[in-house]
Amino acid sequence: MSEISEPPPHDMVGYTFVTRGRTISESDIIFHAGQTGDLYPLHLDAEEAKASPFGQRIAHGTLILSIAMGLKFDMSSTGRISYGYDRVRFVKPVFIGDTVRARVTVVQSELEERKLGYRRIVERTEVLNQQDELVIAVDHILMRWEPNRAAADRQ
Amino acid sequence: MSEISEPPPHDMVGYTFVTRGRTISESDIIFHAGQTGDLYPLHLDAEEAKASPFGQRIAHGTLILSIAMGLKFDMSSTGRISYGYDRVRFVKPVFIGDTVRARVTVVQSELEERKLGYRRIVERTEVLNQQDELVIAVDHILMRWEPNRAAADRQ
Amino acid sequence: MSEISEPPPHDMVGYTFVTRGRTISESDIIFHAGQTGDLYPLHLDAEEAKASPFGQRIAHGTLILSIAMGLKFDMSSTGRISYGYDRVRFVKPVFIGDTVRARVTVVQSELEERKLGYRRIVERTEVLNQQDELVIAVDHILMRWEPNRAAADRQ
Amino acid sequence: MSEISEPPPHDMVGYTFVTRGRTISESDIIFHAGQTGDLYPLHLDAEEAKASPFGQRIAHGTLILSIAMGLKFDMSSTGRISYGYDRVRFVKPVFIGDTVRARVTVVQSELEERKLGYRRIVERTEVLNQQDELVIAVDHILMRWEPNRAAADRQ
Amino acid sequence: MSEISEPPPHDMVGYTFVTRGRTISESDIIFHAGQTGDLYPLHLDAEEAKASPFGQRIAHGTLILSIAMGLKFDMSSTGRISYGYDRVRFVKPVFIGDTVRARVTVVQSELEERKLGYRRIVERTEVLNQQDELVIAVDHILMRWEPNRAAADRQ
Amino acid sequence: MSEISEPPPHDMVGYTFVTRGRTISESDIIFHAGQTGDLYPLHLDAEEAKASPFGQRIAHGTLILSIAMGLKFDMSSTGRISYGYDRVRFVKPVFIGDTVRARVTVVQSELEERKLGYRRIVERTEVLNQQDELVIAVDHILMRWEPNRAAADRQ
Repeated sequence: MSEISEPPPHDMVGYTFVTRGRTISESDIIFHAGQTGDLYPLHLDAEEAKASPFGQRIAHGTLILSIAMGLKFDMSSTGRISYGYDRVRFVKPVFIGDTVRARVTVVQSELEERKLGYRRIVERTEVLNQQDELVIAVDHILMRWEPNRAAADRQ
Repeated sequence: MSEISEPPPHDMVGYTFVTRGRTISESDIIFHAGQTGDLYPLHLDAEEAKASPFGQRIAHGTLILSIAMGLKFDMSSTGRISYGYDRVRFVKPVFIGDTVRARVTVVQSELEERKLGYRRIVERTEVLNQQDELVIAVDHILMRWEPNRAAADRQ
Repeated sequence: MSEISEPPPHDMVGYTFVTRGRTISESDIIFHAGQTGDLYPLHLDAEEAKASPFGQRIAHGTLILSIAMGLKFDMSSTGRISYGYDRVRFVKPVFIGDTVRARVTVVQSELEERKLGYRRIVERTEVLNQQDELVIAVDHILMRWEPNRAAADRQ
Repeated sequence: MSEISEPPPHDMVGYTFVTRGRTISESDIIFHAGQTGDLYPLHLDAEEAKASPFGQRIAHGTLILSIAMGLKFDMSSTGRISYGYDRVRFVKPVFIGDTVRARVTVVQSELEERKLGYRRIVERTEVLNQQDELVIAVDHILMRWEPNRAAADRQ
Repeated sequence: MSEISEPPPHDMVGYTFVTRGRTISESDIIFHAGQTGDLYPLHLDAEEAKASPFGQRIAHGTLILSIAMGLKFDMSSTGRISYGYDRVRFVKPVFIGDTVRARVTVVQSELEERKLGYRRIVERTEVLNQQDELVIAVDHILMRWEPNRAAADRQ
Repeated sequence: MSEISEPPPHDMVGYTFVTRGRTISESDIIFHAGQTGDLYPLHLDAEEAKASPFGQRIAHGTLILSIAMGLKFDMSSTGRISYGYDRVRFVKPVFIGDTVRARVTVVQSELEERKLGYRRIVERTEVLNQQDELVIAVDHILMRWEPNRAAADRQ
């Protein structure tokens, strides 16, 4: 029954896309610091940051990771849920004024054995700055509910 | 040279602590949605959320993960940097009014072989709600710069 | 030359769609008040609002209009710019906890005579609450840059 | 009964005033984008904006319109309600760092025929930047409840 | 020269007024906590606050003091600067949903001896909740620049 | 009974410390203005501020005072409550980009006569900018609940 085995194109291995960009502002860092409580001086104290190896304030890793996930947000992908992340790595700092975007490639797509009717998709996600440097790498694991498949499985 | 091989207590395997709590408000979700661009109706549309399996709006996984990392923030741990996360799993939804806190246990602590003078610490971090239910699990990887150790290594 | 005279479907008269919904929170009103400086007690003082004909605080008209325009935001419509609004009418108040969405119908679509290469599109936009009551009506005027048409015109 | 037919000075045709100014910040744009969901790259992506005809990020029309309405806010004008806008036109872009203010002139003031006891006032509102350039034009329609007039009408 | 010795009415001893009200929301507390870094659990952790003598979360004293000063803001009082406060006392807690306003009485108004041309005004400011209970008391010291007086003094 | 008469070190006269720093951003001022309603042009209108004696926008005194109190926040000092302030003085303006920190010295510590079981501590608090200039001076009055002392007093 081929009609049920074929996932939509963006759930197939090899599918790739690049998101739009988002410029990180000083206010983004200050608000994320306040909302999360991570008030580390490297984020909030320009004087101390100037004297650090970074030479300036840096964005929180969680801020950039959150924005990257938001950039991937796509209303058409209804039915997918964010299951988790594997191997999140904070590779390079992001500074005030940098513009980040995400390059996404589906590297895995298979029916989940333990959850009947679900497809497990892994999107390798590379967050890049405006100089195309990798700042965060993460494997984003999504689950898609496939009702037809579930019905077929049940037979 | 024992004085250089002993890390501070909170970097030793078995060290454990629980953070203070943070109540998640409707405004937290709305602002995180706006800041990240993840405007999915389950976060922002009470009517559609009411009709969903969750029965109400849910917080973004990235919001709760970010707040959990902020709750772990501790100024005394100067010299540690957030290297990445392994096996982030969004286990249960967090709703408006829930209070989350993190239970942390050091499960690994060893000198990093590839980066001279650094200690790699893994904090198993369990984010719990007010009913002690696990909502997010994550292995948080930190690096601590150990100058003495670096000097000793260099000899 | 039919390829230049046909606008994309969502620029043709009669095209209609309904946006997703957005629940209006107390914090939305407080922040919009602060950002705009419209601190009128009906928005910020629950006691005075209780004694008013509305019986409770109401959202700013500008807040709901802005959110309605945001709900219409669609990245695929690149090349369209917001030219203005005609006949904006604030029909009913929006309260904390209400969920608004926009019903949009293209009522006009023609080549702009005064601006070579531009198409003028009017989207009749009705902002509705969760009980399908009209809260704001507005004719949203958009301009689309049509390079082919511009070339043809120039011949 | 002439004492009831005279509206307060700021409701009479020809009355004019200029509001104080408000400088538009990068954070204003980012928060308005997040609150409304209008995440268009011209507002949030400095790199893409640089390559656009504007050469830099621009503020949302709804943000500037909302701020202009807030600048007009005046507690003394109790009893007036915002009824709607006619002919809103976004004339020029507003950039980060620009300072806007509104020049207001009452162009119409008459008893509303369809709503007993109400006066309809139209304030022609021109939003200007720091170089006195018109950025938005809008006719703001207000209604004032005139209890004495209502009583007189009823006789 | 009597024309220079008379201050405007709102700078004369005995002048009194009450501001409009402002309802304190959960989001106000969360944002003030984030902006200031005062993340004390009584402000942010509903569970711990429930178990405290207050029985619920309380607003920061600095938040209510700041809002009270904002409520006193009056554009007509151009030329006055905030010099300081005497005897600020946090008398009662303010809870989410409370509405505060300030009752102000000028208790002192005299030419400043040490700063030629300045008048020192003390506004006794009582912040009240919706049950008319005193929550904060503060003597607000203002300085008004009086150019004429300065000229007269110089003679 | 010496074990009850000795307060913790940070409650003893002469104890002194300096907080970490916090850089004040344009967005901090805009949000504090919005949250408090103090929209004075010196805070929000760069053009008018440029023409003022300050030559640029300045931060609200309440913003800097609030941040200074937040910088002093210390979870270890559980059991202390903020009782009030004496002699708050706004000494110098704080500009966008300035970094403030607080230098604190305990100048008084004694058992409160009117409240059994409480110790009254006064922390002289000097808010400094990045050039070590005093911007705000304030005596911060704290109360610490001392259960043992209370028990002893009751005997």
